[in-house]
Parts: sequence; structure tokens; C-alpha cells
Amino acid sequence: MNYPTGDIFIGEIIGTGLLVLLGAGVVAGVLLHHSKSRASGWVVIAFGWGFGVLAGAYTAGPLSGGHINPAVTVAIATTDDGDWGKAPVYFAGQLIGAMLGAVLAWLVYWSQFSANRDEEKAMPTLGIFSTIPEVRSPVANFVTEVIATITLVLPVLAFGLTEGLGTSGTQTMMVALLVVGIGLSLGGPTGYAINPARDLGPRIVHQVLPIPNKGGSDWGYSWVPVLGPLAGGFIAAGIFAVAF
Amino acid sequence: MNYPTGDIFIGEIIGTGLLVLLGAGVVAGVLLHHSKSRASGWVVIAFGWGFGVLAGAYTAGPLSGGHINPAVTVAIATTDDGDWGKAPVYFAGQLIGAMLGAVLAWLVYWSQFSANRDEEKAMPTLGIFSTIPEVRSPVANFVTEVIATITLVLPVLAFGLTEGLGTSGTQTMMVALLVVGIGLSLGGPTGYAINPARDLGPRIVHQVLPIPNKGGSDWGYSWVPVLGPLAGGFIAAGIFAVAF
Amino acid sequence: MNYPTGDIFIGEIIGTGLLVLLGAGVVAGVLLHHSKSRASGWVVIAFGWGFGVLAGAYTAGPLSGGHINPAVTVAIATTDDGDWGKAPVYFAGQLIGAMLGAVLAWLVYWSQFSANRDEEKAMPTLGIFSTIPEVRSPVANFVTEVIATITLVLPVLAFGLTEGLGTSGTQTMMVALLVVGIGLSLGGPTGYAINPARDLGPRIVHQVLPIPNKGGSDWGYSWVPVLGPLAGGFIAAGIFAVAF
Amino acid sequence: MNYPTGDIFIGEIIGTGLLVLLGAGVVAGVLLHHSKSRASGWVVIAFGWGFGVLAGAYTAGPLSGGHINPAVTVAIATTDDGDWGKAPVYFAGQLIGAMLGAVLAWLVYWSQFSANRDEEKAMPTLGIFSTIPEVRSPVANFVTEVIATITLVLPVLAFGLTEGLGTSGTQTMMVALLVVGIGLSLGGPTGYAINPARDLGPRIVHQVLPIPNKGGSDWGYSWVPVLGPLAGGFIAAGIFAVAF
Repeated sequence: MNYPTGDIFIGEIIGTGLLVLLGAGVVAGVLLHHSKSRASGWVVIAFGWGFGVLAGAYTAGPLSGGHINPAVTVAIATTDDGDWGKAPVYFAGQLIGAMLGAVLAWLVYWSQFSANRDEEKAMPTLGIFSTIPEVRSPVANFVTEVIATITLVLPVLAFGLTEGLGTSGTQTMMVALLVVGIGLSLGGPTGYAINPARDLGPRIVHQVLPIPNKGGSDWGYSWVPVLGPLAGGFIAAGIFAVAF
Repeated sequence: MNYPTGDIFIGEIIGTGLLVLLGAGVVAGVLLHHSKSRASGWVVIAFGWGFGVLAGAYTAGPLSGGHINPAVTVAIATTDDGDWGKAPVYFAGQLIGAMLGAVLAWLVYWSQFSANRDEEKAMPTLGIFSTIPEVRSPVANFVTEVIATITLVLPVLAFGLTEGLGTSGTQTMMVALLVVGIGLSLGGPTGYAINPARDLGPRIVHQVLPIPNKGGSDWGYSWVPVLGPLAGGFIAAGIFAVAF
Repeated sequence: MNYPTGDIFIGEIIGTGLLVLLGAGVVAGVLLHHSKSRASGWVVIAFGWGFGVLAGAYTAGPLSGGHINPAVTVAIATTDDGDWGKAPVYFAGQLIGAMLGAVLAWLVYWSQFSANRDEEKAMPTLGIFSTIPEVRSPVANFVTEVIATITLVLPVLAFGLTEGLGTSGTQTMMVALLVVGIGLSLGGPTGYAINPARDLGPRIVHQVLPIPNKGGSDWGYSWVPVLGPLAGGFIAAGIFAVAF
Repeated sequence: MNYPTGDIFIGEIIGTGLLVLLGAGVVAGVLLHHSKSRASGWVVIAFGWGFGVLAGAYTAGPLSGGHINPAVTVAIATTDDGDWGKAPVYFAGQLIGAMLGAVLAWLVYWSQFSANRDEEKAMPTLGIFSTIPEVRSPVANFVTEVIATITLVLPVLAFGLTEGLGTSGTQTMMVALLVVGIGLSLGGPTGYAINPARDLGPRIVHQVLPIPNKGGSDWGYSWVPVLGPLAGGFIAAGIFAVAF
């Protein structure tokens, strides 16, 4: 985490912004009416989010290493001899970037969000921004997020990406495909936040944006996709420290 | 942009030709009757276009670096200390290549286009060649194209591809997957031109080709997928100059 | 196979655990009710399992080379001048890891498994854990598993991965895509175990777990996905020894 | 083409065998009844064939460079200062390999082929082995195969794969994704042979195998997927010689 502080901040904003732009974008395209990608299925959503990681991590790479996920930052800080000094800068950039990405996705799908006025077709829009569990059960949802995040962070550390996700082309591509895999395989129950910023930032944006019939922002659930991934990041770092 | 002028011209024709051949081809296959890939969905379209970038950029790489997109050329020219001298050669090759690719796609699907005579199944064919917005709203469509193009060009520059998209195998593959991601995630509203040549060249070809029941070429919309991506290219270059 | 014995054991547990977590997870998500990925098709299953190989093999790479499959271990032991000394450690780690991964997948989909009580929607769950042939015919099923496993192991050896699947980023990615291809192409008849641990471990777990309406564990078929892949591994090693 | 003659022969048999095993396999799985991948769509077929190229080319790489396609061999021989001496060995290995792969695919799907007795569900099976045009028009079909093969071979040469498709991990992966793209984009009219051996070998096997209700082997069309790809290979080599 020896990148200049200003570069970290900018890099994480850009990287997390690209991640959430592509991630929230793909869900908007699949869910909203008047979209060419409407109802194109789970495979589209998982690849869209995964290639969002590709875009965001590798773009941020030269500036910050490319964490774009607080769960990655806590794991790297833990393994990096406890160097937590710049972690707050990472977190700030990630949260701001996630909010920026959500706003950009809303702008990209402006006409589609505007058309959410049609009474018959109007739908709640939180699912485009943040995760919603299929079965609401805080403990089970939390466990799902913890395991899914370990499945992200432990390979990242084992891949040798101890500076970030964006420091090697081949490795970054593998992380992107890994995230596709996590989405395909472990996303069914909760929609796989596996990243506190990716969930919290867009939820704030959803609360604020003037989207017709947008529905509630479900703050009661919001701690699960924040604390679950953070716990997963710490546990992954612990497994890495012991086993590798 | 220090490639020989003749190589640039030929390389961009071949590269953009391959891009549009695969891109227009995939849409033809999904939309037209009597095609084995008919109605195979958005995932097919996004991967078809993305792997078109793979084919075109890396093939053009040894000759021109592989821009195959005026938005990439303007961004590289801007970052390249303002070296605009060869940009017109790039543009010319890209436009001619896009037209060539559209003609080739039409030849590949000759029987399918010919069968567009059937009154019940006949459909407008512009969507195979050029982009059509789902909701016609010039400002919103323009914004969508700008943001989607920034999402292409900024990572390209950050990936270190400041000579073109085709100068490194691993990086070129990442760009191809990035384009798949942009299609999956941001293509819903406008069909993601993100490349002025890719839209304008095939539109000219659509205007000219003797396709039965081809419908109009919608020149009223044609400025959006040209100016939007160009603006996106400039903005991406600006962000790159400031942040990286 | 010159990795330290303890590292091999831990590495194979982690690697095979990740493989089965993502593999059993993707089938759970596609089959069970109340899952966002429900009914998302064969392409999702094949990519989920393939990227499970990516995650598991490359994570285990630094510790054990990343076999995560007894069929790979027997092939490497055979080609490696008959060094069978550490093969039992690999096998033990793989079986334990596969069981662990199955338990984790069950935890991730806890709410979905719990909802298998609904009389109308309840379904047998063995297919999430282990393979079930579409047409029960031991000889034909055995032949399918043998050929599919040769299709995995012979390329692995030819790719130069004679230490394991996780020793080169690019090569590991190719193995992952190869496994996607085997799933897409050869998975139709038996569900492609191509890995004795991947089938036996989760079958034991299925026998034990308290899942409502879980159905039988079909031990009568269990030898096919164990002996078929082992035979395939030996045959692949033989072809490699003769031809390469 | 300086590989030992015996290695070339064996390598091309194995490589083309793996290609056709995965390629014919994926179509069998999608078309035949009692298959888990039944009706899983065009995306599955295109990825199955593409990853078949990955498996076959890279496995054959150390032995023969990995041509696995006569159209690639003629292009390499043309560019390779007219070194046609070993081309017949390549062709022989490719044809035998393609026949072997088709037989293996039939064995993998033995139960499914056997079930083709059911009167209601029985279907012609040639489409699993060889290509069938959607609209029968020899000239148009020939043109489609020529263009699609140029789209394969010209990038292969430009990628620097002038020894074969299997001599570089990254490049081989790009060729595999390129073939996925060709399938997605240009496969609609004819089913994209783009490889004379891939079509002729399995057609011979289809003629011979005792499959119930197998239907005719359509020899009247068989020259198109042989001569079209060969012409495409020559044209691609010509473009390469002139432009690169």
C-alpha cells in the first residue's frame, strides 16, 4: 500500500466507479423495461459484474494497485504486516467511487428509469443498486456473504496479488473470471455483495435519487452486505497467514 | 502513431473490417430468420462484438497498433503530445473498414437477407448495421454513448495501450472482455456504438445495399453515435491526463 | 510432487474445497427454488464448474501445485517416474476438501435447502452434490467418464502442467476454459464427474446432511464416477508417455 | 513445419480428435434427447467448439505446432516460403483425427444415440457430425465459408502463429476466443465448418456408424465445407503476404 495517498484516492474512485457502473448497469439492463438486454438472464449479470472488476481493478492498478473493495483492503492490510495507515483512504475512495458509479449507471439508463412511471410495469429499483436476499434471514445471509467473500479474497492473496487486483494483466483477468464464477455459483441466495462499498454506496445513491416508484432502500438489511464481506476479508487473511 | 502511413491505412481497414464483420454478423444471426443463431439472446450479441474487437485489434496490431475506433484514435492523439498528423489516415481506414465489414456481413448472411421478402417475417434491417435507441431521446442517448465510451477508452489508456488495442496479447484479450462487459452492462439503452466508424460506415452501407424491405437508415439519429463516442474519447483522454 | 507433505495436504483441501464450493454451489443455485440463478441453464453450470477449477487450482498452486483431482494425481504420478509416495496425501486432501466444499455450498444455500420442505416444489437434492446419469447404463456411463477425463488430463500434461494445474497463470486459465468446454460438450450424459473426489466427497456429505426431502444418495452408481475418471487418468498418462 | 513427421501425424490426430470430440459432443448434447445440456442454445455450441480448439491446438502444439485444420495448413504452407513437403502428413492426421473424434463423441453419447429409436423424438443426426446450411444455396454457402475461414486464418497469421495454433498459451487462448466469436457471429447460415477435416471426417463416420434413424449423410453438400475453407485459407495467406 505504498502508493501516493492522492493516487490511491483517485484510483479507487475511478476503479470502484467503473466496477459499479458496469455492475449496476447490467442489472438495470436486465430488469428495466425498454432495454435491449432485458430479461437476458443470470449469465449476463454474472459476466457483467465480473468484467466490471476487470475494468475497475486494472484501470486503478497504476494508481492504487486496484483494491476497489474494502474486503480486499482489510485483507491486504492484515497480511501487509498490519499496515493500516492508508486503509481509510482506500475506504473513502471506494465508497465515493461506488456512489459515482451508481449515479453514472442511472444516467446511462436515464430513459429506462424515467419510464418506471408506467403503472403496470413499474417495479422497485433497489435491486439495481444494492443486494436483496431471496429469503430474508440475517444469519443465513451473513454466512453466505462471508463464505462468498472468502472465495474471492483467499484466491486473490494466493494469486500473489498482495498489492491489489490490478497489478498483473493475467492475474487481473483471472480475478475477473473468479468473480464471474462467484456470481454464477454463490450469488443465488443474496445477490453476492462480497464488497461493502459496492453495496453501501449505491444504497445511499438509491435513497437520494429522484427515481419514480423507486421503492424503499431497505436499510434494515444494509449491515449484512457490509459486515459479512468485511468478516470474510479478515477470515481469508487469517487462513492465508496460517496456511500459506 | 509512428506506424508507416500505408500500414496504418491497410491495418485499420482490415481491423475495423473484422470488427464490423463479426459485430454486424452476430446481430444478423440473432435477428434474421433461417439462421442457426436466431433468438439466441443478448449474451451472444455482447460476446460476438467483444470477440470482434479481439479479432480486429490484434490483427491490425502489427500494422497500425490497432485503433479500429476513431474514439480511440482521438484519445491516443490527445495523450500522444497532440500528434494528430496521422489521425486522418486512421479515420479513413476505420470508416472504409467498417463499410467493408458491413458488406462482408451482408454477403455471409446473403440468403437470410434475401429471405426478408416473406411478408409475415420481413423486418427492418437497420439494427443489424447501426445502432437504434430503445427510447429515442437525443440528450439521454448522447449521454449514454459518452459514458459507455469513457468506460472503453479510459481503461484502454490505463492498461498502457497508448499505441493501440493490438500491441499486447494479454492486454488485447482484456480489452475484448471489457467490450463484452460494456455491451452486457451499458448496451441496453442505445445498442452501444462507442465507435463512430462502427456506426456510420454500416449506416452508409445500409443506405446503399439492395436489401428487400430494409426500412429506413434513420439519418436523423446518426449524429449521436458519432459525436457521443468522440466526446467520450476526448473526456477519457482528459481524465487520463489529469489522474494518471 | 516435491511440495512439503503438510502443504500438499492443506493445499489440496483448500483447492478442492473451492472447486466443489463453486461447483456444487452453481448447481444448487440453478436447481433450488428461491435462488436468483434458478433455471439459468447449462451454460451457467459449465462456467461455474470451470471457474471453480480456476479458483481451486491456482489457490492451491503455491502449496501443492494444485491437483485437486485424483485423476490428475494418478496421471502426474505415472509420468513423474512413478513417484507415488505423496499420492495418498493428495488423495486425502482432495477427498476432505471435496467434503468441506460441499458443506460450505450447503451453508451458502442454507435457506434454499431449508425451503425444500414445500411439498409441491420439493425435489431430490443429490444432483447438487454428485453426478446422476441421464440414462442409467453403467458401461456407457463409465465410457463417458473415461473419455471426458482423458479430455481433461491429456491436455493438462501436454500444456506442461506436470506439477499441477496451478503453477502458471495463463495455463491455469486455459485449464479452466478447457473444463468449461468439457462441461458444455461432454457433460450431457452423466453430468461429468471427471474427478473421483469431486463426486465421492459430496456424496458422503449428502448422505449425512439433514436436508429435508433430500432423497437417496444412489451408492449403486457411485463407483462409476470414481473408477471412470481414475481409468481416464491412467489412460491419458499412457497416451502422453507414448506420444509426447 | 519443421516438426518430425511422426510427431506431426500423431499430434494432428490427437489435436483434431480433441477438437471434433468437443465440437461434435456439444452439438450432440444440445440436440439429442436425454442429455443434460439439451436445448441449451447457440452460446453453448459456439463456446463448446471454441474451447475444442483450445484443447486440440494446445495439446498438439508440442508435436506439430497444432494446425488441426487443413485451411490453416495451406495458409502456413503458402506463407512458409512454399514449404508443402509435410502438408500431406498434416492433412492425413487431421482427417484421421476428425474421424476419431467423431467416433469418440458417438461413444460419449452412446445412450443418447441409442435412444434415437423413439419414433416421436427420433431426428436426423447428421447435424451433430457435419454442417448443414439453413438455406441450401451452394454459391451463398460457399461464400459464407470462405469469408468465415478468412476471419479465422488471417488473424492467426497476424497473431504471429506461423507455426500453428498451439505454440503460445496466450495466443492459443485468443484463437479459441476468436473461434467462439466466429461461431457466434458467422455460424448462422451454414454452421461454420471453416475446417475441411472437421466436416469431411465426421461425415464419413456418420455414413458408417450404425445409428438408428440417422438419416442421410448429404454428400451433395459435402464439397462446400471442404473447398470453401480451403479457398479461404489461400485467400487469407494472400492477404497476409500483401498487407503484412
